[in-house]
Amino acid sequence: MSDFDWPVRVYYEDTDSGGVVYHANYLKFMERARSEWLRARGIRQDALRAECGVIFAVSHAELAYLRPARFDQALRVGVQVLQARRASVHLAQDIHLQDETQDNNKGTLLARGRVTVVCIDAQTFRPRAFPDHVRREILGDR
Amino acid sequence: MSDFDWPVRVYYEDTDSGGVVYHANYLKFMERARSEWLRARGIRQDALRAECGVIFAVSHAELAYLRPARFDQALRVGVQVLQARRASVHLAQDIHLQDETQDNNKGTLLARGRVTVVCIDAQTFRPRAFPDHVRREILGDR
Amino acid sequence: MSDFDWPVRVYYEDTDSGGVVYHANYLKFMERARSEWLRARGIRQDALRAECGVIFAVSHAELAYLRPARFDQALRVGVQVLQARRASVHLAQDIHLQDETQDNNKGTLLARGRVTVVCIDAQTFRPRAFPDHVRREILGDR
Amino acid sequence: MSDFDWPVRVYYEDTDSGGVVYHANYLKFMERARSEWLRARGIRQDALRAECGVIFAVSHAELAYLRPARFDQALRVGVQVLQARRASVHLAQDIHLQDETQDNNKGTLLARGRVTVVCIDAQTFRPRAFPDHVRREILGDR
Repeated sequence: MSDFDWPVRVYYEDTDSGGVVYHANYLKFMERARSEWLRARGIRQDALRAECGVIFAVSHAELAYLRPARFDQALRVGVQVLQARRASVHLAQDIHLQDETQDNNKGTLLARGRVTVVCIDAQTFRPRAFPDHVRREILGDR
Repeated sequence: MSDFDWPVRVYYEDTDSGGVVYHANYLKFMERARSEWLRARGIRQDALRAECGVIFAVSHAELAYLRPARFDQALRVGVQVLQARRASVHLAQDIHLQDETQDNNKGTLLARGRVTVVCIDAQTFRPRAFPDHVRREILGDR
Repeated sequence: MSDFDWPVRVYYEDTDSGGVVYHANYLKFMERARSEWLRARGIRQDALRAECGVIFAVSHAELAYLRPARFDQALRVGVQVLQARRASVHLAQDIHLQDETQDNNKGTLLARGRVTVVCIDAQTFRPRAFPDHVRREILGDR
Repeated sequence: MSDFDWPVRVYYEDTDSGGVVYHANYLKFMERARSEWLRARGIRQDALRAECGVIFAVSHAELAYLRPARFDQALRVGVQVLQARRASVHLAQDIHLQDETQDNNKGTLLARGRVTVVCIDAQTFRPRAFPDHVRREILGDR
């Protein structure tokens, strides 16, 4: 089970002429969920950049596509901390079809996502330790 | 007739589940053509930003979609200067289906595009006059 | 004032290296708002396609970009019917910065959008009259 | 070394406000390279769909991001067959910075990509064996 779930609606922009969500767009959905997961913990990425000079970057991503998602479907994108380090965090981000007939009840698993996010200096792009309050929030999720 | 044409191939990323190119993506194709039009005239946008502190931004865009473009088709995107001012340029950017059976021969008109591009300060986003060498190249196309 | 407003959060996927929302992405935001406007009126586009064989396509779009939107900002995208015809509807879709300090209070106008949407046959792409229940809902918004 | 390389120019549409190519867009670049790799071997994906009723879908993707790519840079995206099966093919798709000062000379490695592509029925989305001529071309690359 995920620590956090974010709803994503599939619009035309997300689909391709195969009739399903274009495979690269799952990475976008996963980043939306990460941004909202941080926001829910009081972490504003624009403030982090302005005040601490750090941004988050994806250093590794892996996706297993199990079943296609289609136009107008409602998805749920999870965020679960698998491992947190000084300057990086490894996350599970599975994507489920939302069963709209039942409240908050997750349906079929569509894709398994794994992402490593690194905290980097916004100028030099070198790894930087997570600011303390960020680290506390992230560790709190393990 | 356009001053400049740039070929664009339609990939899955460009299409939607309607089976055709997603309407917003024509704006991407038009910007690719503008970037290559500038490059063909020796104008490097990354150098312009680093050396002159200016970037180009779209201030107005208009698109009439006449016929759909499909996966795997070859398109040609035009760039034609309609009017050049001190800090902006108004361009026609029509999009044709490339007839791949005939060399360089334009086929059906798919979309009519009109775009106004403004030269702005990369920091303040305020309009700035085009650098002289840019202006010369742009005016040379009228 | 718009008949309908839809909130859009700006994520990294929406921005470009100019530091602001990439201009083509406003068209995506506008389509999300149209899809949710239809959904709020009980119109499911996937059902329309399956049951009536029609889809909606953009035939004309116009955008005036007034002020840039930035990463992490909250926007509101409007939908207002300007004119409804047998097989098409002309919409105003202005985009405002959401003032997050005040409840539901619209802030600065960022972009003015105008879009014409046509009801077309999903196979032939020829214009088809809006199904009656769609037309009633759309006209109800004038 | 790759069996096939495809040049990709970085435009504004590809970047994000971090100043670099948005991580999901590498998957787009990789699909462009696969499409052109197939085209170079005489395989037209639109014809395959029309005549054989099959399309290609990504079932697994993995990306290691080593160094960022920036606006206006020229990249080269490789396609190398690692393993071919009856209905799927596993590919290495590394992305290099193109050294524009030297002809065709690959520069720095930016990202390592691995993708599994499955041949599926365009209607049922069930795996189907590659058509013979496709299989011959793909195996020819091992």
